[in-house]
Amino acid sequence: MNSNTIQLGHGGGGLLSRELIQNEIVSRFGGGALKGLPDGATLPMPAGRSLAFTTDSYVVQPLEFPGGNIGDLAVHGTVNDLAMCGARPKWLSAGFIIEEGLPMETLWRVVQSMRKAADEAGVQLVTGDTKVVDKGKGDGLFINTAGVGIVEHNIAVHPAHVQPGDVILLNGDVGRHGMAIMSVREGLEFESAIESDCAPLASLVMAMLDAGIEIHCMRDLTRGGLAAALNEIADAAHVQIAIDETSVPVRDDVHGACEILGFDPLYVANEGRFIAIIPARDLTNALAIMHRYPLGEGACFIGTVTGDTEPLVTLKSRIGTSRILDLLSGEQLPRIC
Amino acid sequence: MNSNTIQLGHGGGGLLSRELIQNEIVSRFGGGALKGLPDGATLPMPAGRSLAFTTDSYVVQPLEFPGGNIGDLAVHGTVNDLAMCGARPKWLSAGFIIEEGLPMETLWRVVQSMRKAADEAGVQLVTGDTKVVDKGKGDGLFINTAGVGIVEHNIAVHPAHVQPGDVILLNGDVGRHGMAIMSVREGLEFESAIESDCAPLASLVMAMLDAGIEIHCMRDLTRGGLAAALNEIADAAHVQIAIDETSVPVRDDVHGACEILGFDPLYVANEGRFIAIIPARDLTNALAIMHRYPLGEGACFIGTVTGDTEPLVTLKSRIGTSRILDLLSGEQLPRIC
Repeated sequence: MNSNTIQLGHGGGGLLSRELIQNEIVSRFGGGALKGLPDGATLPMPAGRSLAFTTDSYVVQPLEFPGGNIGDLAVHGTVNDLAMCGARPKWLSAGFIIEEGLPMETLWRVVQSMRKAADEAGVQLVTGDTKVVDKGKGDGLFINTAGVGIVEHNIAVHPAHVQPGDVILLNGDVGRHGMAIMSVREGLEFESAIESDCAPLASLVMAMLDAGIEIHCMRDLTRGGLAAALNEIADAAHVQIAIDETSVPVRDDVHGACEILGFDPLYVANEGRFIAIIPARDLTNALAIMHRYPLGEGACFIGTVTGDTEPLVTLKSRIGTSRILDLLSGEQLPRIC
Repeated sequence: MNSNTIQLGHGGGGLLSRELIQNEIVSRFGGGALKGLPDGATLPMPAGRSLAFTTDSYVVQPLEFPGGNIGDLAVHGTVNDLAMCGARPKWLSAGFIIEEGLPMETLWRVVQSMRKAADEAGVQLVTGDTKVVDKGKGDGLFINTAGVGIVEHNIAVHPAHVQPGDVILLNGDVGRHGMAIMSVREGLEFESAIESDCAPLASLVMAMLDAGIEIHCMRDLTRGGLAAALNEIADAAHVQIAIDETSVPVRDDVHGACEILGFDPLYVANEGRFIAIIPARDLTNALAIMHRYPLGEGACFIGTVTGDTEPLVTLKSRIGTSRILDLLSGEQLPRIC
């Protein structure tokens, strides 16, 4: 019996399961609601508030990459989805699907990163689950996190509220997360490694809502990047959107990696970037607030909602021509989150 | 491009992803909160209620088995965990991790079963996520469901409330789910197939709470079966528990399958069975209520909480001797849920 790697028995519901869960997971999260391992957590809700509820599974490869690992990604990703609903993230669940043979040390590092990310984002891991699958039937580790948040403002954030004349803000440069992952996979070496932008967006978003910015819609720029987010919103809101390419920040190293690997940074995933669509009258105020936060330092105005005819996203390029920014058909970057 | 199976591109966040999610998943769940694919769902909470929150990942093999499939299992399992917290299940999330090459028809059947199971249990699927992993890096399909429920009663259901003198009720025969799975895997054929007991427990539990039964603790008998549930509670509540083996119903076909395969039915997983630990004064009333429900027809009294010294579960066997019912060390039945 090798205690340095995960065994199938760790998922069997017996003593080994209990030891794994108690010693490696619950203890690292400091107990709390997880103590006594009830089937779920019971949580107090403030009166008169709605809740927000979201989930994501994370299947990123490699499990550890410059700037993060699957653990903090799983926390930040779900925290950010709650923030995108205009909710303050409060509670997280974590479901681990572990492949037999995963080094126990990898699990430790991932769980520790989750704890750190949760603390940073002010959320609590309150319930979880661990399954083990046979060697060759998984890929090291998959993590699902679901999150519950509390909607503290009477601002309904939903694509349905997007309207012509609205402006689109972006909180910084795009493409880092996807290129961090791809550089590792492709064995590319730059002078300094491109690090993932993986980070929790909730404080920044809450500050905007606290200041009364009437956010119509938000979306974080994960799978499919800025292009996918804009297309999804155009589609859901039935509007046209025009973006100015020169206004979308892309770091030189990210630009270089994209050129080498043949990617368009507008389609590359991010984990700490989002767009907010707001009324034009709030533009100056919103940018001023965003600039006060490290995650909003590079915030900028990138385009406008131009009409409510057939959904369409257009991009004014660096050389002044205009093209349609469409959804890609299939896979640009597999398993970046 | 073969549209009869899942391709890696279905997880890429582009057009293929959107088609898969819209046409195969959202449409089958009837839209609702899923429409417009926001990053999460915003849900109204009744004033003055706590919420319950739980998660489970499902990795069962085979994906389809007598009496169910991974889809209804994933709905019932999470609905039951909420019921075990004394909460009325309300909302579910679903996270799919699909292996490239999964037949689209399998996904259809699973999603349809989820829809049916959710309708039966009175819960709504409100948010979800779909990832695709490369062929050979998964096992067809893994599903995570998280659930949110509302605690409607002022009865705190938690192992901490278990005390000596409490009685233990079981809602019916044990061992069916695990043996249904194992019979398929081992290619055993009986006169009629053993079907999983997979079913939603919430109405039965709500009826008990509505009638004012002071439930101290509940646990559904999944991984590790009755033995694991009793041991977990003894441990968490720091009590001793004594069970009478003759009072635990086991169907003849399940008993036979267990004998052939070398399993003890008390350790075999169920998906529609639970124990409730209640004060002795509520025993008759609780059994009467349980007997009114199809899922409680076979409800019975199986043992008592005997002391609050060192945690221990003992079993009085058919021949009158007493033995310790311990947690098994490792794996009895891999991947039965």
